[in-house]
Amino acid sequence: MSAVSTTAPISLARGAPSLDIIDVEGLRDAAARAFANDPGGATAYGTSVGYLPLRRLVAEWHDVDEAQVLLTNGSMQADAFLFDELVSPGTQVLIERPTYDRTLLALRQRGAELHAVALEQDGIDTAALERLLNGGAKPTLAHIIPNFHNPAGYTLSLTKRERLLELAREHDFTIFEDDPYVALRFRGETLPTIRSLDAAAGGASVVYASSFSKTVCPGIRVGYLVGPAELIAAIARRATSTYISPSMVGAAIVYEFCSSGALERSSATVRDALEERCDRLADALARELPHARFTAPDGGYFLWVELPVGVDSTELVKAAAELGVAIVNGDDFIADGRSGAVRLSFAPVTPAQIDEAVPRLAAAVAALRGDA
Amino acid sequence: MSAVSTTAPISLARGAPSLDIIDVEGLRDAAARAFANDPGGATAYGTSVGYLPLRRLVAEWHDVDEAQVLLTNGSMQADAFLFDELVSPGTQVLIERPTYDRTLLALRQRGAELHAVALEQDGIDTAALERLLNGGAKPTLAHIIPNFHNPAGYTLSLTKRERLLELAREHDFTIFEDDPYVALRFRGETLPTIRSLDAAAGGASVVYASSFSKTVCPGIRVGYLVGPAELIAAIARRATSTYISPSMVGAAIVYEFCSSGALERSSATVRDALEERCDRLADALARELPHARFTAPDGGYFLWVELPVGVDSTELVKAAAELGVAIVNGDDFIADGRSGAVRLSFAPVTPAQIDEAVPRLAAAVAALRGDA
Repeated sequence: MSAVSTTAPISLARGAPSLDIIDVEGLRDAAARAFANDPGGATAYGTSVGYLPLRRLVAEWHDVDEAQVLLTNGSMQADAFLFDELVSPGTQVLIERPTYDRTLLALRQRGAELHAVALEQDGIDTAALERLLNGGAKPTLAHIIPNFHNPAGYTLSLTKRERLLELAREHDFTIFEDDPYVALRFRGETLPTIRSLDAAAGGASVVYASSFSKTVCPGIRVGYLVGPAELIAAIARRATSTYISPSMVGAAIVYEFCSSGALERSSATVRDALEERCDRLADALARELPHARFTAPDGGYFLWVELPVGVDSTELVKAAAELGVAIVNGDDFIADGRSGAVRLSFAPVTPAQIDEAVPRLAAAVAALRGDA
Repeated sequence: MSAVSTTAPISLARGAPSLDIIDVEGLRDAAARAFANDPGGATAYGTSVGYLPLRRLVAEWHDVDEAQVLLTNGSMQADAFLFDELVSPGTQVLIERPTYDRTLLALRQRGAELHAVALEQDGIDTAALERLLNGGAKPTLAHIIPNFHNPAGYTLSLTKRERLLELAREHDFTIFEDDPYVALRFRGETLPTIRSLDAAAGGASVVYASSFSKTVCPGIRVGYLVGPAELIAAIARRATSTYISPSMVGAAIVYEFCSSGALERSSATVRDALEERCDRLADALARELPHARFTAPDGGYFLWVELPVGVDSTELVKAAAELGVAIVNGDDFIADGRSGAVRLSFAPVTPAQIDEAVPRLAAAVAALRGDA
């Protein structure tokens, strides 16, 4: 064990891409164009709705009026503003089980009463949700990660997107469609957003958030909200009194990155790398950890591994760390109880690192099961 | 009147510099260097304390440990975090009268009980403050803009900085030294920060905020806090759960801008332009509005004009707008009552625009006084 523990540590923990798949040259060129093409817009305060050319581009992508779009310093800031607007102590909020740990924390900090509904491989269990609603739950907001879920990697099916919308209309709650991974699909067909399905039916039940962190780079901190114009206006007022305006320089760089075709190239690079890493991880897990259960995702960063009976996730995180592999405890992503699972991120590692990490993880599992 | 109202509008309202004094080329070069020199640091998430090389530089400038510094998306975000940490409904907070309107709003939104103390030409009236404290006020926080005050343009004298610190220690309140204009002194000697005076005496009564908005550009949205390490750590946790991390790209550009000498050049350009604009504005006011009272500042953006008796500031703002000059009502900067004053910003205008704007303003005053 002492020999193994001296190996270089490998992190399957962080939901962030490795530097080799960031288009640094494209960013540098985009920055040069931002200052050359729109020095006034890039350097001035602007207003809290964000850099207008990028706001317009996002509005075009989503086929909405510009008044329905607000840019933020990363999409988590968008989440925070939305929760500040819609959640106060006692507000009932539907969440998925598991769900993003920072979302859990943000909702708890605001005193929300959480209803956790099981997440299945095709998304939230809408039958269980229906029973919950018919049983008297009165949520006003539902937080949903539709694509390549964090932490589970699962994607909400089209049938369930439609069913969820029906339930939202019937029981009068807003769906917060939290969609940072949408552009990272490396196989299968892109599904329509819940927001677009709702808008096509004339509804206004959905607020949508996404980000450029996964397609441009995380350090640029540019995210956005798309929603009903009145809600966006209210959040814009809140944003003004929080920070005047989000970064104009960051958004102007993203705008130039998008306009020049770098976004498509960068997204393709990222998707190809993620597919290779995901496949390598799935193969290694099938080979090294045959008793664990998982479903390889069609995109995104994460793979959720359900552990063999008798292997505790908290103990496994510790044991893996001792063998030089960082992973995240599945318990962090659930409101209560035990997950029996861990989250593996294949975004920050090369295929070679995956091949090195998984046998260590298997050794940690074996040690806990007493196989060693 | 109709002939005059067709002239091009001139804004003396916005606290923002004109584009001609922004070093756009310096920014473009700094961005290129940021991506070349530290692609990993600039593009990754980083953590909520901000881009480490810039944090280190700020710590050096203020002669503090890095653990005492946190970078934010503009200094108003720093204010917001600090208020979230220290102010809740009923918290007693000392403010200056007048003070920055967004600070008033931020404190009111958090339910603070405000004690407004008169601002004099050498800063807050410390004798009045002492009477207030001896009369039973129990503030836990005092918001102070020490240099080239917004809106008043005044600077807190060294004697009053020291007196304020004595009162803070005696009555156990924290001073929030809100100092975005410090680098914009165009005449006279720079005074030590209240924070440095406190630290030299072994105290920890001051939290300091500043920004690169006035020396680099507003659209970059990079500000910072310097304070006791435990408070900074608490705010870093709050920042993590709000937005993970502030912009790394923005801070890396600022870092390169600072390291290359562009900051000194840019600051000198800005100061020279502000001095010329300020002098031109003071001359024009003395000539055109001899009944108004003002003190030309030694730096910053703002000049506070006390109106002749009988001229209402709200009416003047309207009358000036009709003549094509935007100014800000002094009433916006006080917690209650009437200011009898307006705020003029000389930062966004050229000397030629000032020469055009002030006669219009004088015509508006004359019309209200019935001289016309």
